[in-house]
Amino acid sequence: MARPDFTDALQPHPDANGAKMISKERQRSAIDIDELSTHLFGTTYLQRQQNVLNILKPERILSKDNQANLSRPDRYKLGLARGKRMRQLMDIHGWNEADLLMAEYLVDDLQPYHLHLSLFNSAMREQSSDAQRAYWIPKIESWEIIGAYAQTELGHGSNIRGVELQVTWDQTTKEFVLHISGGTMLPHGDGGELVSYGPLPFIVRVRDRRTHLPPSSIVVGDIGPKYGYAPIDNAYMLFNNHRIAHNCLLSRYASVDPDTGAYTKPANPTSVYGSLTRGRAVIVMSARLVLMRAVTVAVRYLSIRRQFRDRDSPQSEGPESSVLDYSTVQVRVLPLLAATFALHYSGEAMRELYERTRSTIALDGDRGQLAELHSTSAGLKSLATDLAANGIETCRRAMGGHGFGGGTGLVQLNADYLSKPTVEGDNWMITQQAARYLLNRVEDVGRSPEQESKSRTEANLREYQTRASTPPKITELSDKAIAEAFQWRASFLAFEAHRSHYVQKRSWNSMLIELYKLSRSYAQSMLVSNFYEAMQQNSLSSPHTAAVLRDLYRLFALSTMDTEAREFQKSGAVAGEVLDTLPEQILKLMQSIRPHAVRLVDAFALPDFLLDSALGRYDGTVYEDLFNRAHRLNPLNRVTFNPDYWSDEIVMGSKDGGQILAKQ
Amino acid sequence: MARPDFTDALQPHPDANGAKMISKERQRSAIDIDELSTHLFGTTYLQRQQNVLNILKPERILSKDNQANLSRPDRYKLGLARGKRMRQLMDIHGWNEADLLMAEYLVDDLQPYHLHLSLFNSAMREQSSDAQRAYWIPKIESWEIIGAYAQTELGHGSNIRGVELQVTWDQTTKEFVLHISGGTMLPHGDGGELVSYGPLPFIVRVRDRRTHLPPSSIVVGDIGPKYGYAPIDNAYMLFNNHRIAHNCLLSRYASVDPDTGAYTKPANPTSVYGSLTRGRAVIVMSARLVLMRAVTVAVRYLSIRRQFRDRDSPQSEGPESSVLDYSTVQVRVLPLLAATFALHYSGEAMRELYERTRSTIALDGDRGQLAELHSTSAGLKSLATDLAANGIETCRRAMGGHGFGGGTGLVQLNADYLSKPTVEGDNWMITQQAARYLLNRVEDVGRSPEQESKSRTEANLREYQTRASTPPKITELSDKAIAEAFQWRASFLAFEAHRSHYVQKRSWNSMLIELYKLSRSYAQSMLVSNFYEAMQQNSLSSPHTAAVLRDLYRLFALSTMDTEAREFQKSGAVAGEVLDTLPEQILKLMQSIRPHAVRLVDAFALPDFLLDSALGRYDGTVYEDLFNRAHRLNPLNRVTFNPDYWSDEIVMGSKDGGQILAKQ
Repeated sequence: MARPDFTDALQPHPDANGAKMISKERQRSAIDIDELSTHLFGTTYLQRQQNVLNILKPERILSKDNQANLSRPDRYKLGLARGKRMRQLMDIHGWNEADLLMAEYLVDDLQPYHLHLSLFNSAMREQSSDAQRAYWIPKIESWEIIGAYAQTELGHGSNIRGVELQVTWDQTTKEFVLHISGGTMLPHGDGGELVSYGPLPFIVRVRDRRTHLPPSSIVVGDIGPKYGYAPIDNAYMLFNNHRIAHNCLLSRYASVDPDTGAYTKPANPTSVYGSLTRGRAVIVMSARLVLMRAVTVAVRYLSIRRQFRDRDSPQSEGPESSVLDYSTVQVRVLPLLAATFALHYSGEAMRELYERTRSTIALDGDRGQLAELHSTSAGLKSLATDLAANGIETCRRAMGGHGFGGGTGLVQLNADYLSKPTVEGDNWMITQQAARYLLNRVEDVGRSPEQESKSRTEANLREYQTRASTPPKITELSDKAIAEAFQWRASFLAFEAHRSHYVQKRSWNSMLIELYKLSRSYAQSMLVSNFYEAMQQNSLSSPHTAAVLRDLYRLFALSTMDTEAREFQKSGAVAGEVLDTLPEQILKLMQSIRPHAVRLVDAFALPDFLLDSALGRYDGTVYEDLFNRAHRLNPLNRVTFNPDYWSDEIVMGSKDGGQILAKQ
Repeated sequence: MARPDFTDALQPHPDANGAKMISKERQRSAIDIDELSTHLFGTTYLQRQQNVLNILKPERILSKDNQANLSRPDRYKLGLARGKRMRQLMDIHGWNEADLLMAEYLVDDLQPYHLHLSLFNSAMREQSSDAQRAYWIPKIESWEIIGAYAQTELGHGSNIRGVELQVTWDQTTKEFVLHISGGTMLPHGDGGELVSYGPLPFIVRVRDRRTHLPPSSIVVGDIGPKYGYAPIDNAYMLFNNHRIAHNCLLSRYASVDPDTGAYTKPANPTSVYGSLTRGRAVIVMSARLVLMRAVTVAVRYLSIRRQFRDRDSPQSEGPESSVLDYSTVQVRVLPLLAATFALHYSGEAMRELYERTRSTIALDGDRGQLAELHSTSAGLKSLATDLAANGIETCRRAMGGHGFGGGTGLVQLNADYLSKPTVEGDNWMITQQAARYLLNRVEDVGRSPEQESKSRTEANLREYQTRASTPPKITELSDKAIAEAFQWRASFLAFEAHRSHYVQKRSWNSMLIELYKLSRSYAQSMLVSNFYEAMQQNSLSSPHTAAVLRDLYRLFALSTMDTEAREFQKSGAVAGEVLDTLPEQILKLMQSIRPHAVRLVDAFALPDFLLDSALGRYDGTVYEDLFNRAHRLNPLNRVTFNPDYWSDEIVMGSKDGGQILAKQ
């Protein structure tokens, strides 16, 4: 803590009183914040958030005050300590898994135990035989063992055929031998000859239970500082003729007979559409939370921040204009505010579809929808994580100079989230999955134009096929017409790509950019359609809030349309002169949404504890918090430095002779 | 260092031998790297880079091996120690200022002395009277004093009228009194009444020469961790009735009579077009260096990285495809490769114009050009820094999973460079300057259509005015026609905006988004025109290299045109059916440039010392370097952790009881 000085008595300038300003902002709108929060998250979630938050707040180790000042090794140690504490709190308060995940989310550290909770846990459940489950799952749940998950290699990512690790079955000792092969990729078969059976899942004890050191046949470690995720160790691991027992092969699907070495192939894997769809819904829902966070900070700060008076205003005195009143700021932030709702309704639609098909025996139609949603959700993952990752940075830049400071609370969020566009399916590569599905559906529709459609997309494609010669060229942008225009454009691109590939025989690889655009247009159409349908089933009792949500729907759809205007024109979805009016319509929608912006982000119900943001504080005391962080919390200000270049001393009077840095 | 283990003997897989692959890449192209390097940088620059590099390399304190692991306070201390060492090297080797700046660039730390060298130095030279210069400049040059530069306030950025610091002239003691005013912004006048004279420049001693502590009337400190720039202290400072002598007012322009307190207004400031233009040229040239860095890393790594075999290829064996062969990767990276050249030729054009007008008495035409370049270069700053900042991230994502790791060498670059879109004129706000200038020129042209044009823009606007009723709708995209299409579109938007503001009387603030688009279109046109003209004056002796540069010109221009296709169509600059062919033309250009990509980035001559990138190494030993960084250099791997959640111990066997974190 800094010693007392004259700044202790200072108050912010009346024109920069954020608390007053944000309270005025809240008076400008009649949106019922609680109702909208419940609409978005439900009471169970909000209650859990509040309960867990109350438990986390008093924990000193979870305070975020100093974490941005720590070295990467210390940041890891802190992450480990926090991970332990959260698990202890689970015991103390009888939390379930959802509570623990909520705690991890609020603490905002991806703890070193994260893979144990997620990929290790689910892989062990999915791949283990019943006997293996009975043995391992209790140890996993009690954290008696801590697991990780290893799959890709340094030089190999998506293409598992390139993997270099070799596993050999040794019939004499009845062990598997794991070895970095340095050339051959063929595991030994059951006889003397080499037979490759492709990748198989094993569980391997990596470290000694007592010393926690690996054996000499395993080299394992952390890859070092990366873009974000300082508190987690991403590992590398190599095996040098490392031997494991027969029962280390997870044998729910594939197995090796210990007596003969005979290999049993896995049966056709059961449909995983359901759980994958649920997984993608989680990604979309998480993208919305991340974007909500960036937008909350930006909207609160930009409504408080003043910059110049309106030049066309008669008054030359009075407070300067709120930065959020400038259209060049609105156009960056408000469409993202609208996008959070678009992501929400699509994530919710995916989750509901998953729940519905899981709990009832799926009708044919539903199964078609689910298969479709699975395939096309690759495109949605790509679009949603791009929207969120780019959105954080757009919000940050909209905040000008202070957006570069640590007071945003977005520095770590941005660094962490930037992994998302490239993991769990690279955002460019996976668009091929969605495009492939769409091209196959066009093929179906072309082959049997009269058949009944098995999914909504098929119906849309049939509709397009019937009317392709007379494009709608929409002139009235009603809410419904907007959604139809997005569908028309996506269908147009699907038929175009189909013609290129099947008729003009262009190779798949030469079409990758078009396929990317097709996937994106389809994903945008899904976001718009799901938003539109949510508006139709509107469950809000306040017509006022519903009207603002409708403006948000139109803002999201029309600003997306404006960015892609040429495709809408070329496909004949919307008339050219109507596309020319989009900038003006967008401007009006933004003006209409502007007074509600602060209440809308309040409804996101993101606690200050999570935001860790001076600029995005609920109470608006931006400048007080910024000054407190700088003057009172910054450890650099507890040291006086020696500025003379001819002296090697760094800390004034310490006679360190520059040796302070010898440790590196 | 890690202990010896079996990994010491490992070699990379033959299919992942980066050294061989990159050497094959270099054999695919006949570009003369040295000639192109000299074309881009000149021999003086390249020689300086080599000389300074040779001196820096053996300095242990400048090794970048561990810096990403340091805490922010340690990172600052290291930055200070490096700053001292570089200044010592200046003495030892007789460096001039350009050598020192080259050292700072190669070390890639914005040292704590940076403001002393830049803003403090230039402000003192520009604002001091002759007597003040004679006193201060020697002390500044010898670093006897170290200065900083303070201008904006916590709640005030661009609008200097809002500043809260109050300076009062005290006639009795003949001192100025600096005080945070907390309300009034009126300095005292020479009589009893209060008169405001707006902002004035002062030099203030902030810290005691011996103890380096501030007096109790000054509070000063570092603002704390921010997005990037860990080794520099960005300060805050407050004054509590702090008194300074009369000669602390820098009085080249404004002055106060010490006997009467009478204030003398500055004369009209002399034209600063020249030095501002030079400053903007520096920003553009720096943006090109930053983008070159990201592109160098991406091109080298992506040409080495393999992923899948070509599905349409007859061979099912053989090495996988180079990732850079995929069009979806090319379309992200190669237009940025082309953009580095576009930035280069525009930066060079600006610098040449500045040099020409400085050394000769400017002709009227030149003065018009310079005034124009100054005004419109605001748009160029905005576009160039956006291109570079976004380009780093695009390159990073194109590298997939490894793009998120620390081995890119782009983590710090990205964090540092993200300040640029918002400092030295926020990229959205300053586009108003360029737009204002263009609207005024349209007004001139409309008033006196027959007059001779004073600048190229005026000529373009006149040309547009004459032909506005018959838009060119270009059907043949010759090199020249492309440049003209960019000019036409910018002129179209300028006349449209002019009509909105002057004829339809729309307010300036309601037009900000259109004005942003206008500025951007004009800046794009400048980049394309300068690139085109450089192609015409081509000084390369190798026709082969010239042909590749022409492809790069077309790729930059056509991919920009494709992104903005609807404006080109609407303005009548290019025919719609020609715009439809752009994706195919871009694809062909990328295929044609692809074999030259590695040699092109080699010509950027960026030393490995600067890049600090495992992925972007000149010698291609990507995987060896990644493994070395992870396994041998990572300090986290020297510690074994205790994973049991029921134990508070963090480091295994240390009995630390979690106390390791008590320091925070």
